Amino acid sequence: MRTPETPAPSELAQSAAALLERVRERAPRVHCLTNAVAQNFTANVLLAAGCLPSMTVSPEEIAAFVARADALLVNLGTFDRDRREATEIAVETALQDDVPWVLDPVFVDRAPPRAAFALSLVASGPKAVRLNAAEFAALSGRDGDRAALAAYAAAHKTVVGLSGATDLIADATRFAAVGNGHPLMANVTAMGCAGSALIAACLAVEDDPWRATVGGLTLIGIAGELAAQGAKGPGSFAVAILDVLNALDGATVVKNARVN
Amino acid sequence: MRTPETPAPSELAQSAAALLERVRERAPRVHCLTNAVAQNFTANVLLAAGCLPSMTVSPEEIAAFVARADALLVNLGTFDRDRREATEIAVETALQDDVPWVLDPVFVDRAPPRAAFALSLVASGPKAVRLNAAEFAALSGRDGDRAALAAYAAAHKTVVGLSGATDLIADATRFAAVGNGHPLMANVTAMGCAGSALIAACLAVEDDPWRATVGGLTLIGIAGELAAQGAKGPGSFAVAILDVLNALDGATVVKNARVN
Amino acid sequence: MRTPETPAPSELAQSAAALLERVRERAPRVHCLTNAVAQNFTANVLLAAGCLPSMTVSPEEIAAFVARADALLVNLGTFDRDRREATEIAVETALQDDVPWVLDPVFVDRAPPRAAFALSLVASGPKAVRLNAAEFAALSGRDGDRAALAAYAAAHKTVVGLSGATDLIADATRFAAVGNGHPLMANVTAMGCAGSALIAACLAVEDDPWRATVGGLTLIGIAGELAAQGAKGPGSFAVAILDVLNALDGATVVKNARVN
Repeated sequence: MRTPETPAPSELAQSAAALLERVRERAPRVHCLTNAVAQNFTANVLLAAGCLPSMTVSPEEIAAFVARADALLVNLGTFDRDRREATEIAVETALQDDVPWVLDPVFVDRAPPRAAFALSLVASGPKAVRLNAAEFAALSGRDGDRAALAAYAAAHKTVVGLSGATDLIADATRFAAVGNGHPLMANVTAMGCAGSALIAACLAVEDDPWRATVGGLTLIGIAGELAAQGAKGPGSFAVAILDVLNALDGATVVKNARVN
Repeated sequence: MRTPETPAPSELAQSAAALLERVRERAPRVHCLTNAVAQNFTANVLLAAGCLPSMTVSPEEIAAFVARADALLVNLGTFDRDRREATEIAVETALQDDVPWVLDPVFVDRAPPRAAFALSLVASGPKAVRLNAAEFAALSGRDGDRAALAAYAAAHKTVVGLSGATDLIADATRFAAVGNGHPLMANVTAMGCAGSALIAACLAVEDDPWRATVGGLTLIGIAGELAAQGAKGPGSFAVAILDVLNALDGATVVKNARVN
Repeated sequence: MRTPETPAPSELAQSAAALLERVRERAPRVHCLTNAVAQNFTANVLLAAGCLPSMTVSPEEIAAFVARADALLVNLGTFDRDRREATEIAVETALQDDVPWVLDPVFVDRAPPRAAFALSLVASGPKAVRLNAAEFAALSGRDGDRAALAAYAAAHKTVVGLSGATDLIADATRFAAVGNGHPLMANVTAMGCAGSALIAACLAVEDDPWRATVGGLTLIGIAGELAAQGAKGPGSFAVAILDVLNALDGATVVKNARVN
C-alpha cells in the first residue's frame, strides 16, 4: 500500500524519464571506485547513458577526481588495500564537497572485513545503498522486507535499493517496487554494479535520492528488458544492453516502466 | 595408444556431459585469483556455465572467500605484490580446507620471478596445471610430448592440461587428447584462463582431477567450435562463446566431443 | 598546407597499409602498461591486429617483459602506486634496450599528480604522445592547433598525435590530418587507448615514429568507420571493431584512408 508521501506510479515513470533526459543534457561526471571485474562494463554503461565516467582508484589522486565529479559510486567488489584507502579519501572528499554518492556493498555476506568496512561506510552518509537480499541480511541482520528496508533507511538516513526479481526502494517514508528487468541480468557479471552506476548518474542530476534510486533502477531494468528481446544468451545480452541504453529516450521509459 | 587405465572415448564424452550437468545443478562457488585482463571474461564464462564466481584478490579477505568456495583458480596473468600475497594465502587455505585448485602459470616463459613463483606453487599441490607449450617448457625444461607430460604429472602428483590445436591431458597413468576447439580462440585474450576456470568448475563437482581437466577442456573446446560457426571475427566470437556455453547441454556435449 | 617534408596523401595511405601488413607478418610483442578499465579491450585490439600483447603491471617483472618486447605502451588511465613504479622501470628499460614507446597521458587535465608525472615521462623520450585536446592543453598550456603541436613536438623531440573528430599528427617538420573515424568511438571506453596501442604496434615495425603514429591512428579510424556500418550502438560497435580489425587488409586501408 502506498504511503501518502509516495508519488503515483505514473509520476514515478515520468520522473525516471526526466532523469534520463537530464543526464543526457548535462553529461555529469561520475567517478566510480569499483572493482576491476566491473570497471570496463560500468564505464560503458555510463557512457551509453550520456555520462562522463572516470575510474581511478589511486589514493594519490582520488580526491582531485571526486572533487571535480558530480556523483560518486563506491563499490566494494574487489577490496584491496589501495581501494580501501582510496575509498576513505573519496568519501571524505564527497562529504566535504557535497558530491552525492551511492554505496554498493558487494559480497559483504562473504567476508567479515568487507562487512565491517561497509558498516563504517554506511555511517558516512551515502545518499543510497544498492544491494541484494544476502548483502542486506549481512548488513542489517534482517530479511529484506518492506518494513526492514524502511527501518534501515530511517536509521541510517539513506535510501535502500534492494535488487531482485522486483527491485524495492525505500526511504523512511516512501516505498517503490520496480518490476522491470530480466533473468539474463543475473547471468552477466557487473550488472548490479551497472545499476548502482546509473543511480549515481541520477543522483548527479536529482536532489531527492529516493527518486534518483527509483530512477536508476527503472532505467537499468527497462534496458535489460528491451535488450533481452533479441539476445541469444548472456554474451549478446550484455552487448545489447549498451546499445539499448544508448538509444533509450524518455518516451520509451514512460511506455515501459513498471514501477509503483 | 590408450593405457589400460584410460577410459574409452565415448565414456570421456559422457563424463564431460555429466560434469556440465552437475555444475548446472550444484552451482558451485568458484573463486578466481586472476589478472585484471581476464577477470570480466572469466566471471562471465563461469556464470554461463552455471557457477557462482568470486574474484577478489585482497590478501585481507581472500581466506574467507576461498574457505567458502568449492574450487579455486590461481592464474598468474598479472602478477603484482597483492596478488602474490593473496595467492599464498589462498593456496594455504585451499589445502587446509580441501578446496581443489587449478594453476594457470601464464607467461612463465617471459619473466624469471614468475617462473620461480610458479614452481613453488606446483609444489603446493594443485589438482591440475593448465598451460601452453612454451609455459610447459619453461616449467619443466622439456617439450610437451606425451611422455614428458606424464613424467611431470607423476613427479608432481598433479594433472597436466596442455592447450594447443589439440589439448593433451595427462596424469601419471592416463592420457587424453581433446580435438575440439577453433583457431579464433587464440585471438581472444583470456580464453586460456576461461578454460582453466572451467577446469576449476569441474573440480568442484568431480573428485578425479584428470576427468575434471579433460571435462573442462572439452567443454570450452566445444563451446568455441559452436561459437565460431556464426562469428565474423574475434569480437563476435567472444560474445557467442558466452551465449553457446549458457545454452550448452549434455546431449550437445556428447554429440560434439572429439576426445580420446 | 603541406610542408616539403610531408609525404603525399596517397603515400601516407600506402604507408599505413604497409604497416598493417608488416605487423601481421612479424607479430610483434607489444607490452601495455595500461589501466584495468582498458586492459581487456586493448589486448583484444592488439590480437586482432596480429600482435602478441602482454599486460603485466608488476614492478618485479616489468623489466623482463619490456626487454623482450618490440614496443611499449604507457597509459596513465588508472594511476596507482604499483603502476607508477612499474612505469618508471618500464621506461628505463625501454630506453636501455631501444624499445620504442608511446605515452597516453589519460586525464592529465583532472589531477595535478598525474600531470606532473606525465611531464616527467615526456622528458624520458617517448617516440610519440597520443592525447586529446584537454590533455594537450594540460600538458602544454596551449590549444592544440597545428603550430602548437609542432612546437611541442620539436621541443620534446617526439611526435604528437592529437585525437579528435580529425586526428592531427605533428613532428617538428611534418603534419598530417586523419579524417577517418566515427562518433561512436567516443562512446566506448578505452577506444583512445586502443589507438595508442596500435601506434605502439606500428612503432614495433617502423623506425619513423611520425609514420607509425599516422599509421596507427589511420588504422583505428578506418576500423571504427567500417565497424559503425552495421552497429546498433556502442555495444555492438565495440564488438564489430575487433571483427573488422581482424579482417582488415592493406587494400581496404588504401581504399578507405582519408589522410593528408
